[in-house]
Amino acid sequence: MSSSVENISKSIKLNMSKRIRRTPFTNRVEELGVSDFTVVNHMLLPKGFKNTIYEDYWHLAEHVQLWDVSCQRQVQISGPDALKLVQKLTPRPLQKMETGKCFYIPILDENAGMINDPVLLKLDDDMFWISIADSDILLWAKGIALGSNLNVRIEEPDVYPLAVQGPKSEELLCSVFGEEIRKIKFFNYRVLDFHGTKQIIARSGYSKQDGFEIYFKGFEKYFDGIEMGEKLWDTIWEAGKKFNISPGCPNLIDRIEGGLMSYGNDFTKDNNPFECNLDKYCNGNSNHEYIGKEALTQIINNGVKKRMRGIIFDGDPIVATGKPLPVLNEDDKKIGEITSGIYSPRIKKNVGLSIILKDYWNDGQKVLVDTLDEKKRNGTVTSLPFPK
Amino acid sequence: MSSSVENISKSIKLNMSKRIRRTPFTNRVEELGVSDFTVVNHMLLPKGFKNTIYEDYWHLAEHVQLWDVSCQRQVQISGPDALKLVQKLTPRPLQKMETGKCFYIPILDENAGMINDPVLLKLDDDMFWISIADSDILLWAKGIALGSNLNVRIEEPDVYPLAVQGPKSEELLCSVFGEEIRKIKFFNYRVLDFHGTKQIIARSGYSKQDGFEIYFKGFEKYFDGIEMGEKLWDTIWEAGKKFNISPGCPNLIDRIEGGLMSYGNDFTKDNNPFECNLDKYCNGNSNHEYIGKEALTQIINNGVKKRMRGIIFDGDPIVATGKPLPVLNEDDKKIGEITSGIYSPRIKKNVGLSIILKDYWNDGQKVLVDTLDEKKRNGTVTSLPFPK
Repeated sequence: MSSSVENISKSIKLNMSKRIRRTPFTNRVEELGVSDFTVVNHMLLPKGFKNTIYEDYWHLAEHVQLWDVSCQRQVQISGPDALKLVQKLTPRPLQKMETGKCFYIPILDENAGMINDPVLLKLDDDMFWISIADSDILLWAKGIALGSNLNVRIEEPDVYPLAVQGPKSEELLCSVFGEEIRKIKFFNYRVLDFHGTKQIIARSGYSKQDGFEIYFKGFEKYFDGIEMGEKLWDTIWEAGKKFNISPGCPNLIDRIEGGLMSYGNDFTKDNNPFECNLDKYCNGNSNHEYIGKEALTQIINNGVKKRMRGIIFDGDPIVATGKPLPVLNEDDKKIGEITSGIYSPRIKKNVGLSIILKDYWNDGQKVLVDTLDEKKRNGTVTSLPFPK
Repeated sequence: MSSSVENISKSIKLNMSKRIRRTPFTNRVEELGVSDFTVVNHMLLPKGFKNTIYEDYWHLAEHVQLWDVSCQRQVQISGPDALKLVQKLTPRPLQKMETGKCFYIPILDENAGMINDPVLLKLDDDMFWISIADSDILLWAKGIALGSNLNVRIEEPDVYPLAVQGPKSEELLCSVFGEEIRKIKFFNYRVLDFHGTKQIIARSGYSKQDGFEIYFKGFEKYFDGIEMGEKLWDTIWEAGKKFNISPGCPNLIDRIEGGLMSYGNDFTKDNNPFECNLDKYCNGNSNHEYIGKEALTQIINNGVKKRMRGIIFDGDPIVATGKPLPVLNEDDKKIGEITSGIYSPRIKKNVGLSIILKDYWNDGQKVLVDTLDEKKRNGTVTSLPFPK
């Protein structure tokens, strides 16, 4: 394990039970030497393999990796009022959304607090998937629908995303699924065949590299005596060998540099979408009604008080404490805290994500970072994603 | 680590992050040598300490233990429509519930599927806490309330339950909080003083022993230079020494013998409350409306098809596989599966919980248990809790 704000270096053992669900790919991930997991949406998410996080970072930037991101559970909303319900869940206008598109959408509670930041897939005029971060949006959506008497069906379908990430993703997937892969534009999906099954493949993923997410459908179905999910994994794995494939998982360095936030780590329901720089999904000319609209309007009127920013800071690679690192102004006043931070071998400094008070959020602002060891480090505020 | 259906014996490492929240007691639990954790409601729950699960079982039955069950998060519902909303969430009639009472309540979705089995505390006519198992009932309750335009406030209060369990619990807590402890009846609570703070203490807990749950309020508040939660832990710990106190956690053997189910392990939203033997909370003479009522009525009309039962089965202590164990009839037809199972040192056989088909659910029914090793074990169906 590496040292970072997010990861505590000491070993903590996870006690397994049925409640912490395995995925169609967990066997494969274990065979390939997964070092540790976390739990997202009551499901295992691998967090590391044999390589260091630095090795994985370079590998991801240069080759291709296979990630079990099944924990991105889908909330399937179908029926005559499906669009009406989904639109009620987010400030982002969906009227013009076409089938085949993926939309990143903030989901707010009545106080305009973020309760998830999923990707929405439109499967048909009356059928959507919400590909969620770590909170039970199925219960939220069902609660809203039941209370509002909307005619929808809401369920968790038999779908387990498998991500292929890195610059060689396109070549690799072309060799498995054919040339149509190249036609898939960013945040679009196509339905492609895999041994007679139809699989949704989107150009998307939780890295700043090119990549795809296969919304694998068919857990516990068999093909030729092997589980279909394992067949899919094995097929990509075999084809990937000539592209130097490795098993992987969301890489903390890559995601921080890319300004990709993690729900529950970098922001919670105590944050509004402006604090997460999601203005463009909240300021449309749409007049639709959605939960949190009144509170959001109030926030706009009062002005946004803090925003997510990057921090680049000096010194040796930071040592994990498991605690956020306070960000201070020159008078030692706390102006934010780094919720995800790590040493970047590319920038050759430490990098972090932090929600920063308005007076200090400008690019180039000098700050101090309290790394909870001997002395404070000099840092600079930067826009997101981090400069190349 | 012990061997059981629930626990996989091999070590799986948990990667920590802010998203997996620590509790007011996590420092103390680590100092006392916690061996592993699980994650419940996005929060750490200790799963073992230095002793074996067998040693812990006997200790719990004879002495007293201190458990960090902060992951039993509270959903606080307050306001003029609080009772109306809570009543909408459960088939159990609440009209006559008095302040100071704790009610075990099934929470159902519109299909009468179980989405949680929490304990409800009535704090006042317009104020309730729902002490939840592992699903985001806060989002469910908020969704229902928003959709239905109910005038309530729903939040997660600053409350972290600390359980004191075992036959010496009463004596121990009397030595800390005074004689009023003895007056707390089962599933009732009282508000007692701790260094000038008011703390809710209920006679309840996730074991079949006597015990209490202190709904500790005041994370990150300080008393005399020490965090209040740690002060509470230390005070009970010091007073507990003469009662042979040890750190602990829900004990799998004790809970199976007591017929205490675990949401997500033994039942899910695919199960209705009758399958979980919760008939008495669903068959009242109350005419109130609640979510799932129509579906539940349908189930009653169609008849209940399977129910949770105990299974006692032969052979050596079972070896962990992490997978449920199929329960078969004499023709090798699957009639259920053991979702929580382990060797009981008291009964001197293996014990398990399993939802069993109607034709086989009678006390004394002979069954076979497939322990996924060489040969099947002979077993017998028993009512719950297991016979003394």
